[in-house]
Amino acid sequence: MRATLIHAPGDIRVEDVPDPGIIAPTDALVRVTASCVCGSDLWPYRGVSKVSRPRRIGHEFVGIVEEVGKEVTSLRTGQFVIAPFLYSDNTCPHCRVGMQSVCAHGGGWGGPDRDGHPVDGGQGEYVRVPLADGTLVATPEVPDDALVPSLLACSDVMGTGWHAAVSAGVQPGHTVVVVGDGAVGLCGVLAASRMGAERVVAMSRHESRQALAREFGATDVVAERGEDGIAAVLELTDGVGADAVLECVGTGPAMEQAFGCARPGSTVGFVGVPHGAEAPITTMFRRNVGLAGGVAPVRDYLEQLRDGVLAGGIEPGKVFDLTLPLEQVADAYTAMDERRAIKVLLEP
Amino acid sequence: MRATLIHAPGDIRVEDVPDPGIIAPTDALVRVTASCVCGSDLWPYRGVSKVSRPRRIGHEFVGIVEEVGKEVTSLRTGQFVIAPFLYSDNTCPHCRVGMQSVCAHGGGWGGPDRDGHPVDGGQGEYVRVPLADGTLVATPEVPDDALVPSLLACSDVMGTGWHAAVSAGVQPGHTVVVVGDGAVGLCGVLAASRMGAERVVAMSRHESRQALAREFGATDVVAERGEDGIAAVLELTDGVGADAVLECVGTGPAMEQAFGCARPGSTVGFVGVPHGAEAPITTMFRRNVGLAGGVAPVRDYLEQLRDGVLAGGIEPGKVFDLTLPLEQVADAYTAMDERRAIKVLLEP
Repeated sequence: MRATLIHAPGDIRVEDVPDPGIIAPTDALVRVTASCVCGSDLWPYRGVSKVSRPRRIGHEFVGIVEEVGKEVTSLRTGQFVIAPFLYSDNTCPHCRVGMQSVCAHGGGWGGPDRDGHPVDGGQGEYVRVPLADGTLVATPEVPDDALVPSLLACSDVMGTGWHAAVSAGVQPGHTVVVVGDGAVGLCGVLAASRMGAERVVAMSRHESRQALAREFGATDVVAERGEDGIAAVLELTDGVGADAVLECVGTGPAMEQAFGCARPGSTVGFVGVPHGAEAPITTMFRRNVGLAGGVAPVRDYLEQLRDGVLAGGIEPGKVFDLTLPLEQVADAYTAMDERRAIKVLLEP
Repeated sequence: MRATLIHAPGDIRVEDVPDPGIIAPTDALVRVTASCVCGSDLWPYRGVSKVSRPRRIGHEFVGIVEEVGKEVTSLRTGQFVIAPFLYSDNTCPHCRVGMQSVCAHGGGWGGPDRDGHPVDGGQGEYVRVPLADGTLVATPEVPDDALVPSLLACSDVMGTGWHAAVSAGVQPGHTVVVVGDGAVGLCGVLAASRMGAERVVAMSRHESRQALAREFGATDVVAERGEDGIAAVLELTDGVGADAVLECVGTGPAMEQAFGCARPGSTVGFVGVPHGAEAPITTMFRRNVGLAGGVAPVRDYLEQLRDGVLAGGIEPGKVFDLTLPLEQVADAYTAMDERRAIKVLLEP
């Protein structure tokens, strides 16, 4: 089959790789009908994280179940399924409390599983899915093509934006600030709005992203950054600060922005992988502002998000502003790297 | 009147100071019937925080209302009152969400108020209480002497231990680890137990404190520290970690201990003023362990804790293991500094 490998920073190729098949009786084989490129895929692409040898890449996909292992009970051939960006058994003590991202037996796409067998990346034609019963979430029937982008978005960015809002403790009536206007930040806006926030402040200085933020429910947009951005939020909130803040970037300035906007007693929900961000413990202590979040346990939210998409309540697929065939995946990386696209959907 | 001043590290004196009286119409004048020495009073005493000139000290007291200002509506002369360790109006936007420790008009005992008028410290005979309606919590009647230590403990250590448990999200059935066996940590044990934790693990290597922790509801005691302490907690929890962790010290090793014991998805509730503690943001992200807490909004919990004491449900006054007359306050500091006493109660 054809699948994407990253060979080195800036070097993305689609190549022939061995066809995957069932290995463990708990596996499923999925034919990928849509995948995409994640902001976090840009780290190795940009050389921020190391690429020591060519490896498979991509961790977001939806598709059709082609085959299931003998012990798989909840899935059948022909079903449309959404894969979260990590696989998990959904039964271990961490999974049982909704922390599937720390599953005792789970792992990530593209690397070896715990038995040393290769696991495919999402940016390819097929994926062997370990722990399929615990990992995959099916739709009642094969959905209309128009819904596929939004279902795909649930595999990572929507689930991650949702986790930011859950971690920040968003409640109906809240004023929520979202730091970051990437796909995750925009989904954070959608999540906060969906959870009943009265006011959602998107911090963005890009017009197209501001527009999408407003479509997703942002009531206010703050284009300023740093001290000016904080001042703007404080002005919007009568000097009090936001009831919940979503930090969807991971840099030092983004985290400072987030804490600067947070009212005493609130929580900064963070889902941007920390690269430069620090927790300002003295400020946190003095102002009683908490920090919670991390690698999103998307699996925990996936049924709920799927149902929201199927019912037409949320349309996170709007974050995809470019669609390319898998064979042009390198162009997809370039478009996102150059910020010409928010997020690129890949079709087989 | 007589009141305590700190002149320099190690130099605590009781001296004659001007008698306080009502200044603002929102003031009350309280005759102190019991006060005490706090672990945080030891910082200037030990020279950890600066003492640039002699100043009043002490921030925990209970007493009898002697006089109220013209605008005070909820208090009357002769009532027994508990003062939280900060005064607050209880009406500003921060107070209204239970964050009285960040009150827009509040402040601390012993320093000038926002109008520049002196506010007495708690370790003296009388205190002028600003914003008395918002600050003081009265008992229905003057309580029996036996209850006074427990009511006094609510002014800081019990309220602070309670805040640690609230911040950590303690729920019925939880396994809770408490790092720190000072008066606050011990009250954290009591709080967790009172909130219905099934298992409360006190980390302590002092026999007398272990015994009190057990009286307060600890089901397990872990004497080991560092990696050994973490391993002991993991063994107690089948490798999963605690559902909630209370960090009641503030040092780097204590915070590391706390995060090492916390299960993924849990929260470290911290109330030890950070002196060396850092938030391990990468670990927090990877394991989804949150950090919340800070300067305890004791006022928010005070009615509830008062009622718990009056009903006999909690007896936090057991943390006092030495009682001295105010005139011997210097000995009280010495006893706590040398860890001969957990906490010293001062009588007029």
